[in-house]
Amino acid sequence: MSIRVAIVGPTSYTSLYLMQILLRHPQAKLTYLASQRAELPDVEKEFPQLLGRLPADIVVGPIDTRAMADVSDVVFLCVPHVAAMQYAPDLLSAGLRVIDLSADYRLADATLYQKVYEHVHTDPRNLAQAVYGLPEFFAEQVKTARLVANPGCYPTAAALAIAPLLQRSLVKPTGILINAASGITGAGRQAKPHLHFPEMNESFLAYAAGTHRHQPEIAQTLTTLKGQRVSLLFVPHLLPLDRGILETIYLDPNDEDVTQEELFEAFEDAYEGQPFVRVRQDFPNVKYVRDTNFCDISVRLCPPAPGNGATEAVAGSDVGGAKIVVFSAIDNMIKGASGQAVQNMNLMFGLDQTTGLF
Amino acid sequence: MSIRVAIVGPTSYTSLYLMQILLRHPQAKLTYLASQRAELPDVEKEFPQLLGRLPADIVVGPIDTRAMADVSDVVFLCVPHVAAMQYAPDLLSAGLRVIDLSADYRLADATLYQKVYEHVHTDPRNLAQAVYGLPEFFAEQVKTARLVANPGCYPTAAALAIAPLLQRSLVKPTGILINAASGITGAGRQAKPHLHFPEMNESFLAYAAGTHRHQPEIAQTLTTLKGQRVSLLFVPHLLPLDRGILETIYLDPNDEDVTQEELFEAFEDAYEGQPFVRVRQDFPNVKYVRDTNFCDISVRLCPPAPGNGATEAVAGSDVGGAKIVVFSAIDNMIKGASGQAVQNMNLMFGLDQTTGLF
Amino acid sequence: MSIRVAIVGPTSYTSLYLMQILLRHPQAKLTYLASQRAELPDVEKEFPQLLGRLPADIVVGPIDTRAMADVSDVVFLCVPHVAAMQYAPDLLSAGLRVIDLSADYRLADATLYQKVYEHVHTDPRNLAQAVYGLPEFFAEQVKTARLVANPGCYPTAAALAIAPLLQRSLVKPTGILINAASGITGAGRQAKPHLHFPEMNESFLAYAAGTHRHQPEIAQTLTTLKGQRVSLLFVPHLLPLDRGILETIYLDPNDEDVTQEELFEAFEDAYEGQPFVRVRQDFPNVKYVRDTNFCDISVRLCPPAPGNGATEAVAGSDVGGAKIVVFSAIDNMIKGASGQAVQNMNLMFGLDQTTGLF
Amino acid sequence: MSIRVAIVGPTSYTSLYLMQILLRHPQAKLTYLASQRAELPDVEKEFPQLLGRLPADIVVGPIDTRAMADVSDVVFLCVPHVAAMQYAPDLLSAGLRVIDLSADYRLADATLYQKVYEHVHTDPRNLAQAVYGLPEFFAEQVKTARLVANPGCYPTAAALAIAPLLQRSLVKPTGILINAASGITGAGRQAKPHLHFPEMNESFLAYAAGTHRHQPEIAQTLTTLKGQRVSLLFVPHLLPLDRGILETIYLDPNDEDVTQEELFEAFEDAYEGQPFVRVRQDFPNVKYVRDTNFCDISVRLCPPAPGNGATEAVAGSDVGGAKIVVFSAIDNMIKGASGQAVQNMNLMFGLDQTTGLF
Repeated sequence: MSIRVAIVGPTSYTSLYLMQILLRHPQAKLTYLASQRAELPDVEKEFPQLLGRLPADIVVGPIDTRAMADVSDVVFLCVPHVAAMQYAPDLLSAGLRVIDLSADYRLADATLYQKVYEHVHTDPRNLAQAVYGLPEFFAEQVKTARLVANPGCYPTAAALAIAPLLQRSLVKPTGILINAASGITGAGRQAKPHLHFPEMNESFLAYAAGTHRHQPEIAQTLTTLKGQRVSLLFVPHLLPLDRGILETIYLDPNDEDVTQEELFEAFEDAYEGQPFVRVRQDFPNVKYVRDTNFCDISVRLCPPAPGNGATEAVAGSDVGGAKIVVFSAIDNMIKGASGQAVQNMNLMFGLDQTTGLF
Repeated sequence: MSIRVAIVGPTSYTSLYLMQILLRHPQAKLTYLASQRAELPDVEKEFPQLLGRLPADIVVGPIDTRAMADVSDVVFLCVPHVAAMQYAPDLLSAGLRVIDLSADYRLADATLYQKVYEHVHTDPRNLAQAVYGLPEFFAEQVKTARLVANPGCYPTAAALAIAPLLQRSLVKPTGILINAASGITGAGRQAKPHLHFPEMNESFLAYAAGTHRHQPEIAQTLTTLKGQRVSLLFVPHLLPLDRGILETIYLDPNDEDVTQEELFEAFEDAYEGQPFVRVRQDFPNVKYVRDTNFCDISVRLCPPAPGNGATEAVAGSDVGGAKIVVFSAIDNMIKGASGQAVQNMNLMFGLDQTTGLF
Repeated sequence: MSIRVAIVGPTSYTSLYLMQILLRHPQAKLTYLASQRAELPDVEKEFPQLLGRLPADIVVGPIDTRAMADVSDVVFLCVPHVAAMQYAPDLLSAGLRVIDLSADYRLADATLYQKVYEHVHTDPRNLAQAVYGLPEFFAEQVKTARLVANPGCYPTAAALAIAPLLQRSLVKPTGILINAASGITGAGRQAKPHLHFPEMNESFLAYAAGTHRHQPEIAQTLTTLKGQRVSLLFVPHLLPLDRGILETIYLDPNDEDVTQEELFEAFEDAYEGQPFVRVRQDFPNVKYVRDTNFCDISVRLCPPAPGNGATEAVAGSDVGGAKIVVFSAIDNMIKGASGQAVQNMNLMFGLDQTTGLF
Repeated sequence: MSIRVAIVGPTSYTSLYLMQILLRHPQAKLTYLASQRAELPDVEKEFPQLLGRLPADIVVGPIDTRAMADVSDVVFLCVPHVAAMQYAPDLLSAGLRVIDLSADYRLADATLYQKVYEHVHTDPRNLAQAVYGLPEFFAEQVKTARLVANPGCYPTAAALAIAPLLQRSLVKPTGILINAASGITGAGRQAKPHLHFPEMNESFLAYAAGTHRHQPEIAQTLTTLKGQRVSLLFVPHLLPLDRGILETIYLDPNDEDVTQEELFEAFEDAYEGQPFVRVRQDFPNVKYVRDTNFCDISVRLCPPAPGNGATEAVAGSDVGGAKIVVFSAIDNMIKGASGQAVQNMNLMFGLDQTTGLF
């Protein structure tokens, strides 16, 4: 079997990484690259790394539902939000499966979508049926989905790091602090003054503290998985590197007597059999998940134990009560976008979810 | 007047930046570089940027108290901890002023020092008289000090960011979370496997979460300034860049009704007349304090205000209670080390503290 | 069929990239990692990116020929020069194929080897039979080789860029200038002071101008392919990035009337049907061959043509006679080492040479 | 004395570094920042590093000659070419000294200017009197100049590296090859797709080979200094770092018997007493001239000497005839632009040329 794949928006970074993964996927074939540009893009010029790599018979054409339906089984939407919900209804009506890498179908509540993205949701009917494509928690729904909302990059790293502790009631569902940092591909491919090389190189700063659009997405996922309202604060930063997200997450234990071992085992237990989550003893590093679909997670109880001199001596026997710190690293372009999208495709088409992803 | 300056440990990074600052300081003159190496270092080979820059009559010699005392008024110790307290007593006895860039005289309590640095403090007599050289808070004591303990890099950024809020009782003194990130010069000049270029480049990871030696130093300073025990958790990360520290600090307000304006004004008020602290409206960036003695600080109340859709819609009217987030950026080698050391020297010798530092 | 693979020296960078390629090679299986360390390495700790990736039944053991022969068909030597020729004879005697990533079997003349590497060649017998594994020129010999000398990184990029012009007599075989730059993985995995992150970051400098050991290797290959002594000067530089080599090569045309088109076509012709050489119109960039086995090449005739105002007006109608400039980019770890090694393995075992390499 | 300084074009990178240098220049005072923007820029927002640094009484105003003349002695033009020659005539007529950092007055021949910059030169009268501000060779003319054309970045590094060898007739004046690499600030402050951080990071490539506008400027300077037409080929590259140029220059000796010592001494002799050129034994590194006005130069004779095994054994006793390789490193923003501009200002106003530049 070969899954025939179309991509809408072939000149985005998510499309680049999607094409690279699909080009070595043993059971997928790129058939159609659909662009809204009046002058269709020369994809091998847009992305010099692809020179000579695309199939000879690939079509680069307009966003024409019928043309795509003729040659494809699934369409990946690599376009900005608002644009995605303009194309999805027709593609779904034509019988195509759709995996949307934009934010348009991530927030289940159209009213919330409107508040967060400052645009009316124009496709509430499909929104109601969209499946949030985080396979570690929603694989069964993904398998039968016609429309998958591929999660945001930050929300992927956050949900995987927090959900096991919430579900096992090891931490309080309130006051969660997510300190996040992302490489610059996460900001997209458009050249902007603050992303000009000499501004971003040797640079590190926060942005959108408490106001980033991924904050409600994270809260929604955790609230769903916990079955109870979860509150959190999300503070992202920009890292001077290409790819990678590291989130350092601070949580309050439900029980001050929890041990490091219990915490570690909670993650081991949660992700047993999950091929793409690695529970580590050492500190996750964005470098070591680069170009992979892994999410690397480790957990630390702080203070580690009575007897830690540094902490104990000055601050008494605690650091203002024990804190649990979880570290979560992904490649924002792979597990945070295109890799996870292919993981979802694999599930939708009955393949092993790892196909083409190692 | 010209202050005659000796440096012990001339091949460290702190010494490099100290020499660079002093070479354009209008009232200082480098006279003696003292090394413990059997074969004295060729400093212009150690640091190729210094070729042709050192005074013709500078002495590179052994760590000989008398020789240094003959030609110097002040000695900077750019050596590791434990080494510093071996040299300081003699230098002080010889009448020299001493500015120690190591950790040996930072922790006032010798018992705590022993726990944290795993070495008996061998100079408790001078420890009792050492002044913690954070001029924004202890300038008067620095002016008359004979021995200044130059603060650690992380503690400098932390204390300047937190103290004003504690002193004005705007935040709770417990449960403070300091998420910090530093460029690699902070790890010193010795080549180590994890600091090898291909390991650290395009990399980002945490280390020493809750166990870093700077944690008790921060707690000590804040406890002193608050007059009450302060508890905190400190989690550092390594950034793939040369120089710069950014700390993102999470605090609980004492009063949920505090406003963004009150917080901003607290900092403006605290640092009025302080030449090296800049209170910003935008997010501090390590890039924009590089090569300066500035500490750039900004503060955010999260959620910012009722009506912020993203936060409000999902998580109700709060994010688990309001949080105050403070951002603090320094150059770890300047305000975090050598620049602050010169700022202290200026105060000790009756100069304007900015001399040679703009 | 599955080729069973052993690696000697599993903690080097070339081994890391070799393992990563082989882990997704459809017809290869890693069976044995052989280390000379008294305490055998924990490869998943050495390379955190490999956590959970190695086959469950892989053996990490000593460098024991019999043990390797029991479970392997081919052995890759990822050890330094001199070490490789200590292991190769026994491995070959045991019937194993050997692909040596060190320099030990690259220079055909043992006397030259001794001069260049300052060590007697201790295995002249196998040296006489070793095949230089540059498949674009020596594929037939590689197919039947028992011992392949995998080319150096710089020599790979140089030979592919220069040989077509020499073979077609478009350029003079003397006075070739190779200005090269490499990412830091090329310097190996050992931490050294000049490769410490804060020294190499934001840095660019030359080294070993005219004295690098790859210079005679390049000259040997070109002399062989041209059938006439070729003289050249090789000047390498270090680039502040992980992976990639760009060579900018200056040659004198045999005929001043040669055209840009003739030059381009010479390369197109030379590499027709070669899957891993891409002849480009734009300038090759190390970024766009990263993580690939491609060598990207482009050629420029300078001055481009009569009428180029800038050049013509000042310098007359030439720039001191026409020059041909060739640009050649590879990933030093892939086409420059481990990828090319797998390309050679594929040929030796009758596979399509691209297997596992796209 | 205090020189009153105006800058036209305050939002460019050259202006940023100029302001930073002037802010610590003991005898200069920034008085007027002149912008063509309808809405005048907030310079402290454009350049966050300048927050609180500008003089309280500085004027940010339109490009108004009279207003500038009222408060200034000298004007620096930090605008693109073509724009500069629109402003210069009036400013000169108003009695102001002008230092132009654009290319408008660098090429002495208006016809050549038109060919290279594809625009008619509209101010030939002042062009005839402009002095090329390379103080190491033209200091006397600079001292009395009213209009200084500040040299290009690449031409500065090239001229300083080549002129001494030409003037002493140690090398041939033809066939000079300049392989250059520059940090990204050299491309200006405007965000462009190919300079977007994720494109340029971990990247290295050539551009404008043989067609860069600095090629005729270099040829002009060398032709002037040699008194004879000099021909050369200039091939620039982009480096993934902020600041710095390294040029690796290949020349043919006039006499094959020249020695390494003679070459080194030629440079030592040429730059005796010049404060900003450092002749080195080791390889210049862009990192070690960063933030300085130095040009670091070293020279290598290749092959170094009979007896160098690597070179000799393969290629005979030469590498196709001896080559001289010169390495030249500057900070493109300092010695390559704003630092050299201040060096020129110092000369024009009778100061020591190093004032404010160490």
